Amino acid sequence: MTQGLATKYEINADMGEGFGRWKMGPDEELMPFINAANIACGFHAGDPTIMLKTIRLCKQHGVKAGAHPGQQDMFGFGRRKIEVDSKDMYALVLYQVGALKAMLDAEGVALSHIKPHGELYFYMQRDTTIMRAVLEACATFKVPVYACQNEQQEAMCKELGIPFQGEVYVDIDYSPEGKLIPVAQSTTATPELCYQRTLSATMTDHGNDIDGKEFCFGFEGKPFSICIHSDHPTVLQNVKGARQAVDEANRNRFPKESEVAPS
Amino acid sequence: MTQGLATKYEINADMGEGFGRWKMGPDEELMPFINAANIACGFHAGDPTIMLKTIRLCKQHGVKAGAHPGQQDMFGFGRRKIEVDSKDMYALVLYQVGALKAMLDAEGVALSHIKPHGELYFYMQRDTTIMRAVLEACATFKVPVYACQNEQQEAMCKELGIPFQGEVYVDIDYSPEGKLIPVAQSTTATPELCYQRTLSATMTDHGNDIDGKEFCFGFEGKPFSICIHSDHPTVLQNVKGARQAVDEANRNRFPKESEVAPS
Amino acid sequence: MTQGLATKYEINADMGEGFGRWKMGPDEELMPFINAANIACGFHAGDPTIMLKTIRLCKQHGVKAGAHPGQQDMFGFGRRKIEVDSKDMYALVLYQVGALKAMLDAEGVALSHIKPHGELYFYMQRDTTIMRAVLEACATFKVPVYACQNEQQEAMCKELGIPFQGEVYVDIDYSPEGKLIPVAQSTTATPELCYQRTLSATMTDHGNDIDGKEFCFGFEGKPFSICIHSDHPTVLQNVKGARQAVDEANRNRFPKESEVAPS
Amino acid sequence: MTQGLATKYEINADMGEGFGRWKMGPDEELMPFINAANIACGFHAGDPTIMLKTIRLCKQHGVKAGAHPGQQDMFGFGRRKIEVDSKDMYALVLYQVGALKAMLDAEGVALSHIKPHGELYFYMQRDTTIMRAVLEACATFKVPVYACQNEQQEAMCKELGIPFQGEVYVDIDYSPEGKLIPVAQSTTATPELCYQRTLSATMTDHGNDIDGKEFCFGFEGKPFSICIHSDHPTVLQNVKGARQAVDEANRNRFPKESEVAPS
Repeated sequence: MTQGLATKYEINADMGEGFGRWKMGPDEELMPFINAANIACGFHAGDPTIMLKTIRLCKQHGVKAGAHPGQQDMFGFGRRKIEVDSKDMYALVLYQVGALKAMLDAEGVALSHIKPHGELYFYMQRDTTIMRAVLEACATFKVPVYACQNEQQEAMCKELGIPFQGEVYVDIDYSPEGKLIPVAQSTTATPELCYQRTLSATMTDHGNDIDGKEFCFGFEGKPFSICIHSDHPTVLQNVKGARQAVDEANRNRFPKESEVAPS
Repeated sequence: MTQGLATKYEINADMGEGFGRWKMGPDEELMPFINAANIACGFHAGDPTIMLKTIRLCKQHGVKAGAHPGQQDMFGFGRRKIEVDSKDMYALVLYQVGALKAMLDAEGVALSHIKPHGELYFYMQRDTTIMRAVLEACATFKVPVYACQNEQQEAMCKELGIPFQGEVYVDIDYSPEGKLIPVAQSTTATPELCYQRTLSATMTDHGNDIDGKEFCFGFEGKPFSICIHSDHPTVLQNVKGARQAVDEANRNRFPKESEVAPS
Repeated sequence: MTQGLATKYEINADMGEGFGRWKMGPDEELMPFINAANIACGFHAGDPTIMLKTIRLCKQHGVKAGAHPGQQDMFGFGRRKIEVDSKDMYALVLYQVGALKAMLDAEGVALSHIKPHGELYFYMQRDTTIMRAVLEACATFKVPVYACQNEQQEAMCKELGIPFQGEVYVDIDYSPEGKLIPVAQSTTATPELCYQRTLSATMTDHGNDIDGKEFCFGFEGKPFSICIHSDHPTVLQNVKGARQAVDEANRNRFPKESEVAPS
Repeated sequence: MTQGLATKYEINADMGEGFGRWKMGPDEELMPFINAANIACGFHAGDPTIMLKTIRLCKQHGVKAGAHPGQQDMFGFGRRKIEVDSKDMYALVLYQVGALKAMLDAEGVALSHIKPHGELYFYMQRDTTIMRAVLEACATFKVPVYACQNEQQEAMCKELGIPFQGEVYVDIDYSPEGKLIPVAQSTTATPELCYQRTLSATMTDHGNDIDGKEFCFGFEGKPFSICIHSDHPTVLQNVKGARQAVDEANRNRFPKESEVAPS
């Protein structure tokens, strides 16, 4: 049940979100600072060639390669609400993750995890039928599903026999209700802020919401994953702040795991 | 080297070539008459939902489920020439077959074979670099690749460690050079013609080209696959002609294999 | 303000809703029975070649050629809810209608009207900002916008200087709230039902909802358009029922207009 | 016959070649240095929202707005060979230019010209039937078509009643046969090179091919358009070199026209 879960704190980021000649984040520059890549699968971003290139980058940098399926919405970058029948949703997640999986097989790399993208993730949080359809598709691959803490999703993963990997965001804000606030409405992320928030989450299991009020993440000592937005203009600075805090926390909290280099 | 190859004569047809609300061939009616389905993978036709539905139809009818990757060309139904870099081609075949493979895994059905569609097939015949790119992608899946007799392709399959499954078409004509002639320029297919051509190919290893001249297929006793066009207006009649001949030939040539029902 | 509006009862139907090799309704067979075609513009269905072919069919049959813009959703046939920013919506309606308009210009045919398709139409009814964005785009073309009776939309059309053309559906049901009920939940349409409903709407300004209760359309003598679903399996029968009633009503109510053949 | 043609030397560049969240060239920074924008129409790049935004940028900077139709190939950025039936080609050019035209109408801006993009342009040069299909579609709009000197195309434009606007490229090389050489195989463009080449073309009607051999453009004193690649990494420097030379040449050759500011 816990195979594939993080054994110490780690950093994940979305990768391969270009399309044809268009580029999105600075993938190559980011790779040395992260542990897990969420690779776009061609529906909200990415194309077969970029997917394969990103897998090879992961291999080269020892970064775990996960699938990042999204809504079929290149124009909206998978961030718009689109009504999807749950049977269609089940099929489109299988399709995307399977496409990536074949490339990983060809490269001799294991599929590490699945992380639903943008609106696909939010749709799951709003709609239990969609959550089940997505997780049933994920269950085919028997790898951890990444998401922010959510009891219902954790229970459904358990029921379906797949690990649930908790996450924390440090370059955007949390609302008083514990929801993620979009980049545009969040406090501007700085490397210092990313460092402090990462250290606080890992060492104290606490964060502060946008109003400054402290809240508890509820990891109770279990290692989790820190997500960094790769399409943020200052991501290369931000990730270094988070990396430093993750390394410090791992040396302190998971010293045995940390004898090996982070990535 | 021969795992997955036909052990007696069989019939294959393209399936799942609708898109969204649009339908192409009479898939459900055809299933009882065929042995192997070539399932469109969403690039020239098909979508995730239709793919899954077609896999379930195959399961229900005991029909082998193969992948039918094509050029990324819904408008042209994968029949137009599109220039593709060999690296892109390798990735797009992996992508399509992988997407189908995950759905087969979810349904507990094995991937039976891969058959490149339309222009993707013809591109391979014209361009050795493309042939190699496609076959290298296919090699990841270790299943037979279907194609008309072609020494170069057979040799390349052998080199890459994947079986080559020879095919014969009976509802279109062959040119004097042994090439397939498009439906529009071919003699109108009738059930009788399909029956006779199938019987001739299976029992005598010979056919007649569009000019009436006899030629040898060169199977030398090995069983092969008969392809029927599922988008032909009279396919439901044609397939019955071919089915009858295949059943007769199998009883005659592969009596042990034929103790089991054809599909 | 009334230029382009119907001067007697007429029948409209969606046309050109195929894509590439895929076909939808029986366009050619329907043309002789309708007065106005709503031509798909390539976003929910249709492609440039089918659009041009449909325009030429209209020309040949003396049928008015209107634009039928839709959501960018080929998979869902423009019937799924997709969140669209109002600025994007304004641009995508201009884009689609403009594309059709250029083809009409090339063929020397006037753009007759604009009728938003499926979910694009329902989105307008739910969201005033979207209604305004769509109608502002329509205002560029200065032609009538087709829709079921809706005071708010009629007022907004007036404000923007474009005519509003009221419509009635006779092959699906109306809810007690006056909303259209999808085909699947409606009483099966028959030619007799289409005839009776058309005659009732035209001659008495009344219809019956799905519970049998009578309601008033509110046309108060103004001619309107009857919409027939071209993708309904029995459309060729249904349209004849509606056509007969429309012809009778026109001879009775608009005798001068009816001296000319209906289409 | 000459309406819409350049009355002095000018600079054109491709604009609006992003898609959704993806960006291509530095459109806003380039606008002050060019006279004519070739706006992508959504097939090789661009989307309705970007098209409208680009038209507004043109309006703001007094830059002429032209259509830049391309092959339907977002993945290949319209630079791959795709076989298109000439009837399909005619329709897809009408579609794209019409879509842009409607937006220009909405903004009260005239369609200035049409410039086929990438492979669509090269396809015309290779295939007379395609050239005719594209130009017949362009003829609907009665505006100049931009292209490098080509007698056959110039004659066909004349026959169809549309102006032909000659062009020169200064940031890539010409082959000894007078063909354009792709960026990757060309001498690296510098602002100095762009300045010198522009000055040579405008003042002497001559250029030098990649082997250094001098050739004559054949403009014989007629003003023409200089094209700058907006997706070139140093385009903002290159365009300044070309701009300086164009301004000098115009003061010298077309002093009356140059009393007005270039854009």
